[in-house]
Amino acid sequence: MSSSIVDPSDTVAPSLDGDPVFELHRGGKMVVASTVPLTSREDLSLAYTPGVARVCEAIAADESLVDDYTWVSHTVAVVTDGSAVLGLGNIGPRAAMPVMEGKAVLFKQFGGVDAVPICLDTQDVDEIVSVVTALAPSFGGINLEDISAPRCFEIERRLDEALPIPIFHDDQHGTAIVVLAALRNAAALLDRKLGDLRVVISGAGAAGVAVAKMLFAGGVSAGDTVVCDSRGIIHRDRADLGPTKAELAELTNSAGRTGGIADALAGADVLIGVSGGQIAEEAVAGMAPGGIVFALANPTPEVHPDVAARHAAVVATGRSDFPNQINNVLAFPGIFRGALDARATAITDGMKVAAADAIAGVVAEALSADAIVPSPLDPRVAPAVAAAVAAAARRDGVARA
Amino acid sequence: MSSSIVDPSDTVAPSLDGDPVFELHRGGKMVVASTVPLTSREDLSLAYTPGVARVCEAIAADESLVDDYTWVSHTVAVVTDGSAVLGLGNIGPRAAMPVMEGKAVLFKQFGGVDAVPICLDTQDVDEIVSVVTALAPSFGGINLEDISAPRCFEIERRLDEALPIPIFHDDQHGTAIVVLAALRNAAALLDRKLGDLRVVISGAGAAGVAVAKMLFAGGVSAGDTVVCDSRGIIHRDRADLGPTKAELAELTNSAGRTGGIADALAGADVLIGVSGGQIAEEAVAGMAPGGIVFALANPTPEVHPDVAARHAAVVATGRSDFPNQINNVLAFPGIFRGALDARATAITDGMKVAAADAIAGVVAEALSADAIVPSPLDPRVAPAVAAAVAAAARRDGVARA
Repeated sequence: MSSSIVDPSDTVAPSLDGDPVFELHRGGKMVVASTVPLTSREDLSLAYTPGVARVCEAIAADESLVDDYTWVSHTVAVVTDGSAVLGLGNIGPRAAMPVMEGKAVLFKQFGGVDAVPICLDTQDVDEIVSVVTALAPSFGGINLEDISAPRCFEIERRLDEALPIPIFHDDQHGTAIVVLAALRNAAALLDRKLGDLRVVISGAGAAGVAVAKMLFAGGVSAGDTVVCDSRGIIHRDRADLGPTKAELAELTNSAGRTGGIADALAGADVLIGVSGGQIAEEAVAGMAPGGIVFALANPTPEVHPDVAARHAAVVATGRSDFPNQINNVLAFPGIFRGALDARATAITDGMKVAAADAIAGVVAEALSADAIVPSPLDPRVAPAVAAAVAAAARRDGVARA
Repeated sequence: MSSSIVDPSDTVAPSLDGDPVFELHRGGKMVVASTVPLTSREDLSLAYTPGVARVCEAIAADESLVDDYTWVSHTVAVVTDGSAVLGLGNIGPRAAMPVMEGKAVLFKQFGGVDAVPICLDTQDVDEIVSVVTALAPSFGGINLEDISAPRCFEIERRLDEALPIPIFHDDQHGTAIVVLAALRNAAALLDRKLGDLRVVISGAGAAGVAVAKMLFAGGVSAGDTVVCDSRGIIHRDRADLGPTKAELAELTNSAGRTGGIADALAGADVLIGVSGGQIAEEAVAGMAPGGIVFALANPTPEVHPDVAARHAAVVATGRSDFPNQINNVLAFPGIFRGALDARATAITDGMKVAAADAIAGVVAEALSADAIVPSPLDPRVAPAVAAAVAAAARRDGVARA
């Protein structure tokens, strides 16, 4: 029946069979399960017609009852357009699905949050906003994922304005929250104050911008922070800045530094790499002694942790095979668990800072240079984050419960 | 914090507590579950980063692999706009959610199909088509549900043309398939041929139109069928018909009957009520002796089955508390199971007729006037339907597996 000249039996590469990653992924990583019995006529008449009609009528009369009598209040959508998937780039919605399923099962495992992967067949900002807005009655929150910058900023802002449920772009805020948690503990270990540190952020994409804003909300001095993009230090005299970077130029670099990453790092206390761009050892060597290096690019850190350790007192990466893994899974399950528990209408900066403090707090009593953040598998993290986030939602006036 | 003058403690009516329907619905009826282990660093590195990146790359290189290595190929979206929910009318997306969850858990229980309820905050046809088209990479099929006529016809047609996955409006085709199954067995029991029966369909909404087309595909004579809407018999001289009813006027009623339901029923062999409108006993009494009445309105059949039984040899309803329940759950789980098993790109008329024949076949050897269709709980039904539908998909050239 096919018009293709390719033999269908060739389409699955034989090498995928027996590969443990592909074997694990066969059939996907998740299913839906009923929580009610469906084996008798009586069961059917309660869970479906005619009984269900009374629940519908009750919600039609009082829409807030949807939180009590449907799965909406414990369910989030993990939404992507496939435009910036991991470090793979714009691979599209179908190829993004394994990551979104992975996110969904991590939500469940660590936060008890039911998550549905939604991979959209559009990369148009207006259309993404319109689609997610239309989907909103079905979910208690929206986790945006792997959407490229600067589109991700506008999409998140417009959805946050339009919808009465939490909107959270994990690539921005999840990373930023864990970075703040790690920096708090690194500073405590070194007996430094956050506000006294001179910080360099290498990378001004979605994560870099969010890390900068999060650190400022957490007490780092914006004026003493320098952000670099692929063209070097961001400063007010640069003519090539879009609105997001122009805002950073206003806030940061009050000394008016110019030049490249080596110029930025000269005498700096902290390097946070969120760019993927490599940084030479000589540049790192120019930092102030006893500093902090977070080299978060995956799989290849901006500077190898062994090299960084020659020049810095505390080193972290995004990798599981080195100490101090900065992993978003420390943040997103507990953040949504807490936001849903409080029936929050948004995720405020206060909730994000509370999440960072809670992550840091889990290991605060047992700090060492190799343990400034908890393990991604530490079962204490998500409940601590959830409780802190729910409390902050109530303090910030965005909680409905 | 609230500007409402209503005390929040009043918003849950006390009478809902202790009510078994509401107790069953508390927290909703479904959850998501992981099918992979997530308790070690090794688990995380296989199911999430870095391992997952290789699965993404493989799908980016060959999109058909999404069927093998994600949950897409066993997952359908149950999509509504809340415009025609059960008999409750246009109650909106939030109040529709309990029905969509119910549908989803029935999909799982009877068809082993993972289903996600999607309640859309729009009733604009163009926008619904655009949203569902954008969602399509996330699902192996789309079950449209409780969308009002005539909008449902256009939405289904446009999605079917746009998307390479099965689109199925259950209120139309699910009902129609089970009606055809029931009529086949009723005719067999009475030793009548489908093509010899004079059929009256009362109701020309989504279900009525689909029932008519399904019966014609199954062998009923269109010319000997009369369809009535709320204004009476549909015939070619009526000036008030939209395109769907005008098409019915062309196909049906070759005798050119006019008047109301009593005129239509005079001498008819079969009455199929899918209107909700009541039909007087005198009108039913005018049918030919030894006929068939399916009075499917819920909760109040067009004619009470005890009354119908005075004038007809076989009677069916939509209710679980009378014999011969015409229940869509006999169709949709097996239809999507079969379509997904065959990786069908559409649901053809041949697949629908095959589903009806399979449903009828389950009880064909043990027919009685009180058992022309299987019980909704009969575990033989969905596997039989799935096998028949998958085989028909392959016959009709729409199967990819």
